Amino acid sequence: MKQRRKELVFILLITLLFNMPGYAQQKPNVIVFLVDDMGWQDTSLPFWTQTTPLNKRYHTPNMERLAKEGMKFTNAYATPVCTPTRISLISGMNAAHHKVTNWTSPQNNVSSDNNDEQFSPAPWNYSGLSPKTGIPNTIYATPYPQLLKEAGYFTIHVGKAHWASIGSPGANPYNLGFMVNIGGHAAGHPQSYYGQDFYGNKPGKNTLQSVPDLEEYYGTETFLTEALTLEALKTLEAPIKNKQPFYLNMAHYAIHTPIQADERFYQKYIAAGLAPVEAKYASLIEGMDKSLGDIMDYLKAKKADQNTIIIFMSDNGGLSLAPPRAGTAHTQNLPLKAGKGSVNEGGIREPMIVKWPGVTKPAAVANQYVIVEDFFPTILEMAGIKNYKTHQKIDGKSFVPILNNANYTDNQRALYWHFPNKWIPEDGPGINYKSAVRQGDWKLIYNMRDGSTELYNLKEDIGEQKNEAAAYPEKAKALAAKLGTQLKEWEAPMPVVKATGKVVAMPGLTGN
Amino acid sequence: MKQRRKELVFILLITLLFNMPGYAQQKPNVIVFLVDDMGWQDTSLPFWTQTTPLNKRYHTPNMERLAKEGMKFTNAYATPVCTPTRISLISGMNAAHHKVTNWTSPQNNVSSDNNDEQFSPAPWNYSGLSPKTGIPNTIYATPYPQLLKEAGYFTIHVGKAHWASIGSPGANPYNLGFMVNIGGHAAGHPQSYYGQDFYGNKPGKNTLQSVPDLEEYYGTETFLTEALTLEALKTLEAPIKNKQPFYLNMAHYAIHTPIQADERFYQKYIAAGLAPVEAKYASLIEGMDKSLGDIMDYLKAKKADQNTIIIFMSDNGGLSLAPPRAGTAHTQNLPLKAGKGSVNEGGIREPMIVKWPGVTKPAAVANQYVIVEDFFPTILEMAGIKNYKTHQKIDGKSFVPILNNANYTDNQRALYWHFPNKWIPEDGPGINYKSAVRQGDWKLIYNMRDGSTELYNLKEDIGEQKNEAAAYPEKAKALAAKLGTQLKEWEAPMPVVKATGKVVAMPGLTGN
Repeated sequence: MKQRRKELVFILLITLLFNMPGYAQQKPNVIVFLVDDMGWQDTSLPFWTQTTPLNKRYHTPNMERLAKEGMKFTNAYATPVCTPTRISLISGMNAAHHKVTNWTSPQNNVSSDNNDEQFSPAPWNYSGLSPKTGIPNTIYATPYPQLLKEAGYFTIHVGKAHWASIGSPGANPYNLGFMVNIGGHAAGHPQSYYGQDFYGNKPGKNTLQSVPDLEEYYGTETFLTEALTLEALKTLEAPIKNKQPFYLNMAHYAIHTPIQADERFYQKYIAAGLAPVEAKYASLIEGMDKSLGDIMDYLKAKKADQNTIIIFMSDNGGLSLAPPRAGTAHTQNLPLKAGKGSVNEGGIREPMIVKWPGVTKPAAVANQYVIVEDFFPTILEMAGIKNYKTHQKIDGKSFVPILNNANYTDNQRALYWHFPNKWIPEDGPGINYKSAVRQGDWKLIYNMRDGSTELYNLKEDIGEQKNEAAAYPEKAKALAAKLGTQLKEWEAPMPVVKATGKVVAMPGLTGN
Repeated sequence: MKQRRKELVFILLITLLFNMPGYAQQKPNVIVFLVDDMGWQDTSLPFWTQTTPLNKRYHTPNMERLAKEGMKFTNAYATPVCTPTRISLISGMNAAHHKVTNWTSPQNNVSSDNNDEQFSPAPWNYSGLSPKTGIPNTIYATPYPQLLKEAGYFTIHVGKAHWASIGSPGANPYNLGFMVNIGGHAAGHPQSYYGQDFYGNKPGKNTLQSVPDLEEYYGTETFLTEALTLEALKTLEAPIKNKQPFYLNMAHYAIHTPIQADERFYQKYIAAGLAPVEAKYASLIEGMDKSLGDIMDYLKAKKADQNTIIIFMSDNGGLSLAPPRAGTAHTQNLPLKAGKGSVNEGGIREPMIVKWPGVTKPAAVANQYVIVEDFFPTILEMAGIKNYKTHQKIDGKSFVPILNNANYTDNQRALYWHFPNKWIPEDGPGINYKSAVRQGDWKLIYNMRDGSTELYNLKEDIGEQKNEAAAYPEKAKALAAKLGTQLKEWEAPMPVVKATGKVVAMPGLTGN
C-alpha cells in the first residue's frame, strides 16, 4: 500500500513536470539564417577542397566562427532563383513539384517570365505559395512554421519573404505560420538598403520594393542589414525570457541587387583594389556576416546559445551577370560555372553551415549532398514534431542523420532541378529552359530548347567543363530517364513549342 | 514524520502547480479597443441621460452589446487630440506632465503647431514618446505593454500607433513593449482606407500616411477597418492555444479623416437622407462597430470570452470642423460643445465601455469621471502586476474600484487638460491655448490668450453654455489656483508672448 502511494505520487510529479514551462524549454530554438543571392564562393570560408581567390577577397569571420562551432556542408543545393528556393524550404517540396519554378512578381497574377520566340510559357504557379486552397496560380501547401507554431514555438520572420504576390494570402507571413513579421512582403529585393532613403519609402518615391516596418531608422545611417538584425534581436527577448522555444527566419535582403555600399565595410574593399561595384558587393557580404555574429553574440549573452540551432544558407548562386557585376560574365562563382539563374553549380550550390549544440561536432565537414527542401523535415525533426499533417507530399529528406555523422553517405539519392522558364532575355550557361539531376558524382542537364543533354562528373570536374555524355551514353540515358520519370510523377510544368503547339517532351521519356 | 512528508509533498505539488502554464492562464487577457476621433455621441448607445438625435442616426449594435455585458462610463475623458491621449494611455501620465500636448508630425523634429501672431510655441515634446533617454523633444517613459510583456503577456499592437516621429525609437511599437505590430507607425491617419488604393502604397503615390503590412489585401475591396480586424484575430490564435495571456491594443484608424465610405454600410445612411460626407462618417463608425463584434464573436468561439477584458475607448472628441463635416461647425457632438481639438466636453468626453467578466455587472453604468491616464494603473492591476518600476511618476488612478462598484464616487479628485498649442489656424470654442480642470461637477477653462476663465456646472449644463465664473467667483478662483498649482508641479509647457518675450502665466498663480 505504501509502495502504491509512492508510485502514485511519482506519476503525479512526472505528469506535472512534463506540463511545466521548463519542459517545453527543452525544445531547441531554431534560426534559419537565409542570405539572398549569395554564391558558394562569396565568403572567406572555403567550401571547396582549396582556398580560392574569392575566399581571399571576402571577409566573413562569423561564418568561419559558425563553421568552427558546427558543420559545414560542401554539397548543399538550392534552386537557381529565389522564390522557388523559399517555397521549397517552407513547403518541403521540390520546385518541379510545387511548380513555382521562377521568381514571383510582387504584382498579382503576373508572370515574371520573359517572352521567348520558341516557347510559350510553361503553366507554372507564378503567384507563389498559398496556405489556402483555391487561389489561382499558387501551390497550396502547409508551411512548417505553421506546424512549429501549433507545437508551441514562437515563430518569427524578419526580412525578405517573397513567397507570393500581393493580393494573395501567401504575401502575408502571418498566414504562413509566423507570429511576427518585420520587413517581409511580396517583394524580392529592397528598393534601397539606406536609412537615408527610408528604404524606398520617401513620399512619392515608393515602389512595390519599398521595405515596410522600419520607420525608426528613416533618415539615419542604419543600413538595412543592420536594421533587420536589430529588429530580430528585439523579437528574441520575450521567448528567451519566457522559456518559449522560438523559430527565427532571419532572411536578409542582402546581398541581392541593388548592389549598394554598406559604408561600414566599403572603403576597406576599395583600398584592396576592387572595382567599386565589387567593393559594394563585398561590403554587402561583410555586413550580412556581421549580422550573423551579432546574433551569435546575443544568444551567448542571453545564455541561449547552447539551446539554439543555427542553419546558415543562401537561396541561389551569386549573380554572374555583367553588368551589374564587374569582370567577365559567369566567372563570379569560380570554380563553379555560371551563377544565379543557372542549373550549373554556380547557380545552385550554396554555402551551408549547421550548428546544433550537442549534436554537430565542432569544425565538422559533410560532403553528402543535400537540397533546400530537406530543411522542412529536418527542422520538424529537430523540434521533435512527429506525425504532422501537411496538405502536400514532402519531397525533402531530413539531414539529421548527417548532423549526427558527418561521414554519412548516400550516393543513390537523386536531386532534381527544373527551370522551364525564361529568366533573362538571352540564354546563358545553364540559364533558361533547363532541368537537371544529380546522383552520386554524376549530374545531367537537360536542355528543353533542343532536347540535348550534358553529363558531368562533379567529383572530377566541379566546373562542368567536360561534357561526358558521349563518353558515358548509358549513364546519360539512365539519368535522363530518371529525371524524366520524376518530372512526370510531379507533373512538372513544361513550356509549349509555339510552332507546333506541343508541350516540350520530358527528358529520357520519348527517346531524346 | 509521516505528517512531515505529507507536508513536503504538498508544498512540492503547490510549487509545481504555480509554475504550470495552466496557472499563467489565470491572468486575464486584455483588449483595449481604441477608436480614433470618435465622439461621445457617435453611437447608437446613449451615454447621456437622454437618447439624442445622433444616437438615432448611428448604428453601433456591438457597442450596445458590449455595454449590456459590461459597464458603461458616462464621464470618461481623453485629451483634445490623438497623440497626447495615446501617450497618456501608454505612460499613465497627464498630457501637461508628459508634455506631448499636440499631435506629433510623422516627420522627425517637426512641430505640428500652426504659427500664431500673439505667441511663440510652448516647449512641448513634439517628437513624442521615447522608451530610451536622451532623444530630443520626447518624453522618456516606461510603457505598460513593456511591463505586461515582462510579466509573460503576449503583447500585440494592431492599427494606428502615432506615439512618435520617424527616426526615433518611439515610432516603432516593438520598442514600446509590443511583440507584434501590424500597421502601426509614425502616422496619425491612413492615406486611404481602400484596398483598391493599396491603403496609400500604390507605386509613386505614397506619403508618410501609407499604411504598412497589408499587402495581402492590396487590390481587393477589403476596407482598412476589416483588414486590421482580420489581422488582429490571426494574432490571437497562438496565445489562446498556448494559454498565454495576451494584451491586444486594437487601435483602429477609423473614424479619422479621410472620411471615406465603408461601402458595406454607406448606402444605408444615404438612404436615410444623410449628406454624403455624413453617410461616409456613419459608415466608418458602423465598420468599426462590426470589428468590435467580430472580436467578441471570435473570443466566444474560442472560449476565451470569459477570460478576456475588453475596454472600449476613443482618443478625442468627434471632429466638428465644417468642412470636412457637414452642417454648422461645432454642432456634431451635441449636446456637447465643440469637438476634436477643444477642451470643451465635445473635444474630450469619450464613449467608454469596460467588460471584465466576473467583475463588472451586466448593463452597469458608472458616472464617476475617469481619464485616459487611468488606463495604465488599471490594466496593470487587472493583470495582477504589482510593484512595477517605471521611469515616470504615474498620474493616473486605477478605476478597478469603479469596476467593482458602479456607484463608486469621488467628487474630490481633479482632472486636468492642457493644450498650449495652436491646433488650427483660427481659434474655436475651447480650441487653441487652453487649459481646464474638472472637480466634482465643476469645470474651469483657462484661456491663455487673455488669462480669462470660464466656469461651468456640468451636471446642470453639460453643453457649457452658461459661464458661472461671475456667479461663483470663489469657486472659479479655487479651481484656477488648483489648475495652476498642478501645471506648475508638472512644469507644463506654456507659450511665450511674442511682444514681451515672457512665458504666459499659469492660471490662478499671478492673479489672473
